[in-house]
Amino acid sequence: MSTFSFSIDAECPSSWARAGTIQTLHGTIQTPVFMPVGTQASVKSVSPEELREAGAQIILANTYHLMLRPGSRLIAEFGGLHNFMHWDGPILTDSGGFQVFSLGHLRKLSEEGAAFKSHLDGSPHMLTPENVMQIESELGADIILPLDICAPYPSSPQSAREAMELTHRWAERALSVKEQYRSEQTLFGIVQGAFEPELRQQSARYIGSLPFPGLSIGGLSVGEPKAEMWDLLRSVTPELPRGKPRHLLGVGSPEDLVMGVSLGMDMFDCVLPTRVARHGGLFTHYGRVNIKASRFSAQHGPVEEGCDCYTCRNYSAAYVHHLARAEEQLYYRLGSIHNIRFMLRLASEIRASIIAGTFPEFRDTFLARYVPTSEKVREDQREKWKAARSRLS
Amino acid sequence: MSTFSFSIDAECPSSWARAGTIQTLHGTIQTPVFMPVGTQASVKSVSPEELREAGAQIILANTYHLMLRPGSRLIAEFGGLHNFMHWDGPILTDSGGFQVFSLGHLRKLSEEGAAFKSHLDGSPHMLTPENVMQIESELGADIILPLDICAPYPSSPQSAREAMELTHRWAERALSVKEQYRSEQTLFGIVQGAFEPELRQQSARYIGSLPFPGLSIGGLSVGEPKAEMWDLLRSVTPELPRGKPRHLLGVGSPEDLVMGVSLGMDMFDCVLPTRVARHGGLFTHYGRVNIKASRFSAQHGPVEEGCDCYTCRNYSAAYVHHLARAEEQLYYRLGSIHNIRFMLRLASEIRASIIAGTFPEFRDTFLARYVPTSEKVREDQREKWKAARSRLS
Repeated sequence: MSTFSFSIDAECPSSWARAGTIQTLHGTIQTPVFMPVGTQASVKSVSPEELREAGAQIILANTYHLMLRPGSRLIAEFGGLHNFMHWDGPILTDSGGFQVFSLGHLRKLSEEGAAFKSHLDGSPHMLTPENVMQIESELGADIILPLDICAPYPSSPQSAREAMELTHRWAERALSVKEQYRSEQTLFGIVQGAFEPELRQQSARYIGSLPFPGLSIGGLSVGEPKAEMWDLLRSVTPELPRGKPRHLLGVGSPEDLVMGVSLGMDMFDCVLPTRVARHGGLFTHYGRVNIKASRFSAQHGPVEEGCDCYTCRNYSAAYVHHLARAEEQLYYRLGSIHNIRFMLRLASEIRASIIAGTFPEFRDTFLARYVPTSEKVREDQREKWKAARSRLS
Repeated sequence: MSTFSFSIDAECPSSWARAGTIQTLHGTIQTPVFMPVGTQASVKSVSPEELREAGAQIILANTYHLMLRPGSRLIAEFGGLHNFMHWDGPILTDSGGFQVFSLGHLRKLSEEGAAFKSHLDGSPHMLTPENVMQIESELGADIILPLDICAPYPSSPQSAREAMELTHRWAERALSVKEQYRSEQTLFGIVQGAFEPELRQQSARYIGSLPFPGLSIGGLSVGEPKAEMWDLLRSVTPELPRGKPRHLLGVGSPEDLVMGVSLGMDMFDCVLPTRVARHGGLFTHYGRVNIKASRFSAQHGPVEEGCDCYTCRNYSAAYVHHLARAEEQLYYRLGSIHNIRFMLRLASEIRASIIAGTFPEFRDTFLARYVPTSEKVREDQREKWKAARSRLS
């Protein structure tokens, strides 16, 4: 039996922010929460003990990657992801749908499911709403997601509707087989609808009405300008049931976390903090800095004064700069730990401010000080990553 | 004032093995000792805390790399290597001579010193016995080495003699300026002489007669068959003063450690354990295994049963295999920790056997069980690494 529950501890009267508590079999999660991403059953460069020390309450792993390597059956033989990767806290697995569309080759979509070829070896695979439930039961995460379709940005209203309607039918099929597998797992529903406010509202009402204990908002942060994402959420949140936790899939950056909470979201996950760290980008309250820049070469203080992460407590910015320039592997760890801790601390500060009734001030102060990376830089990065990915696959 | 001292705790009556204790300003070192190498002020993939937990007593850093990046002056401004890299135990720095010959470009040797161009940016540099003392004083290690010449393998008797004689003159020049710098640092002498037993004996007697508190044996493990290295040591060790610690520079593998101790060596350093780990090679008592091999894909037990390293205590061989195959950065850490712990535990087991009077049995049992990597495989690896290096530089 599932031990999953969600309760609301405090709500902000002048925004949609809430502080909540989620109970799972592997522990309690206080929301708002940021979930570091361990794509291949490892948060890149960081050990489980370091995640704990940084304050991680739950991590995410990718079904697509793990079903291909090492395989969900093998992970099941090792007692599931928790045992396999030596992380005893809560885990969430996505459905693999998003990666089929972003990484898989020769994908073919049908009522039945999504056929694709592995980006690793070209082998053919098929994901259906039913076999995704089986695969995720083998992975054994606490929270699992059903197969969905993430419409590309931009999409025509017609194709956006078709993708949403198929996602809805798949959600029902997932629900109808889910209890054949591990009843202690909690299946969230996924809201789609691309960038059509009307479709999004329809999806929120429909998925919200099904017996999912939590909801993920999918298909955002896929290349659209940020303003568009926030506008869309403004029309979606009022349609979501108050009593279920809301997960904004694949989002995001520090400013996304603050804005997302303000717009009623509770859970966030993103590779961004670890990915930008590997490229030299480290978070501070004034925005992202490039630790490889010469100005850090002789800085005696830490990356950010007052930061309580392992990196900032023990190393000068100059040493971190040296390791990054020298491409020492320890750099990737130190940078990732800093950014993960930044996100986790930010989430817990947001929570404290909601409980204290000061969230709007916290939000406004944070956003006034934090200079986000420009749309242009984001676009360039995305192109670079895409290019790197296509060279790999 | 130097607090350096060396005392012999036990000697094996039927080999040249000894157990000793070295005192330094940053702590006590029990010998025989293996020193992990932190070339660029970081033992690749491993944190200082993890080195401590694995039992590291002293680490080595490379003067050549650090003088070029980030520069010894900058490290001095940060209070020396200990502060800069957050390692409060003893450190040994080499002289840079070996790397000038293996990495530097357009090197030109003269009585004065060694001129070379940086492998990073082609900038011109000159190492002399005198400025190496200054650079190493800025790095601030506990034990430092003087500039020497590592003759290539093979060398003609004539060029071997010339290299040795210049090394001797440089040793005297280093000694004559050393006290101008930091008196708390301990300068070891370096024995050279290539693969000429007579020259080696002459060098051991000469360098041993100078007021160096310790001796490093340089110029070995440079491509020669292992048997040749051991034969040479057999003729050198009897010429070394008993009361000074003996450091076998750049050696080596598990079997080298056992053999080297048997032939009278006390201190060892090598990048091999971390380098082979990064390529999938992990040490066991039966020899090196390739963790990427399919036979580990479903192994529930650790990499080696009974191993007390962090990796083996917490992860299955199957998980380590998965990370290695997926090229996850955590793999490089887990593999490196395993191999470093293997070397450090081996050194402490050797020490215990010397004290217990059972070293010859320990040695023979270890060597009978441990299948070393073949000369052919070693040669192939060396060629691969050389090729990778020349592509980089």
